[in-house]
Amino acid sequence: MPSPEQRLNDLLANQTTISLATAESCTGGHVAGRITNIAGSSAYFHGGIVSYTNEAKAGLLGVPEDILANPGAVSDACARAMAEGTRRRLNATIGISTTGIAGPGGATERKPVGLVYIGLAEPEGTQVERHVFEGDRAAVMDAAATRALELLVEAAEKLVDGH
Amino acid sequence: MPSPEQRLNDLLANQTTISLATAESCTGGHVAGRITNIAGSSAYFHGGIVSYTNEAKAGLLGVPEDILANPGAVSDACARAMAEGTRRRLNATIGISTTGIAGPGGATERKPVGLVYIGLAEPEGTQVERHVFEGDRAAVMDAAATRALELLVEAAEKLVDGH
Repeated sequence: MPSPEQRLNDLLANQTTISLATAESCTGGHVAGRITNIAGSSAYFHGGIVSYTNEAKAGLLGVPEDILANPGAVSDACARAMAEGTRRRLNATIGISTTGIAGPGGATERKPVGLVYIGLAEPEGTQVERHVFEGDRAAVMDAAATRALELLVEAAEKLVDGH
Repeated sequence: MPSPEQRLNDLLANQTTISLATAESCTGGHVAGRITNIAGSSAYFHGGIVSYTNEAKAGLLGVPEDILANPGAVSDACARAMAEGTRRRLNATIGISTTGIAGPGGATERKPVGLVYIGLAEPEGTQVERHVFEGDRAAVMDAAATRALELLVEAAEKLVDGH
């Protein structure tokens, strides 16, 4: 089975209407890095923002300050705003976002290590998935990046079929 | 020998005055990804921008359009503007940038595969290194990311000593 980033390339390398952008917090650049590992990705990848601080989430992605205050950066609402923000700022068809707690620090009673929200903004709307991934920091980051790439594949498949 | 990203963490995890930001083109997010692989990096990593298109370099990083037109995105001047742009936009002490030709496509007679400019913007000014890295796309991306991280270590060491 090819990797999701390879499948994205198979879907998008030979068209010019569908483009991608990323907004990463807990995956720290790995979604963008895996997309760009594939030769030819410059045909459909516009770029991304790694927003590690709340200031970057607000300033670069337009996440509202009241979301960052409550429910906070690790939330459905923040993932939604990040995905929509990168889609808009990078003028892309699809925006994907990750925000979560990779660990080992940062957990709270209600937000355990491994909690990750993944947002997907596309022309028909935005959806957010909530996951609690198992394992250490590297495993959580990798699982979150893989799931984000799989969501991009699903969204790209729908849009390619629709064209 | 610890990795440069581990050395960055050893230098910066227990202080609050020195912070980092990235602006990546040819490394596609791998510099940010390697920084954030290290637990504790949120103490000094503000975030980064993966500017794969010229529109992203101009819009998100403020690279002047005349630089993108000539000498182009793969140039000393563009690396300089990207490093200064991310330092400013992410309000960081040090900004690092990469722009180059990871291959296998994209080369021209004067810009071979492996050509990478790495910019470093810090309080005392901005410097740019020019490299031609050997190997395939993965090797070029990895070598460029490693050198960018080494430059961050050198800059962080100077600033930590100065404080």
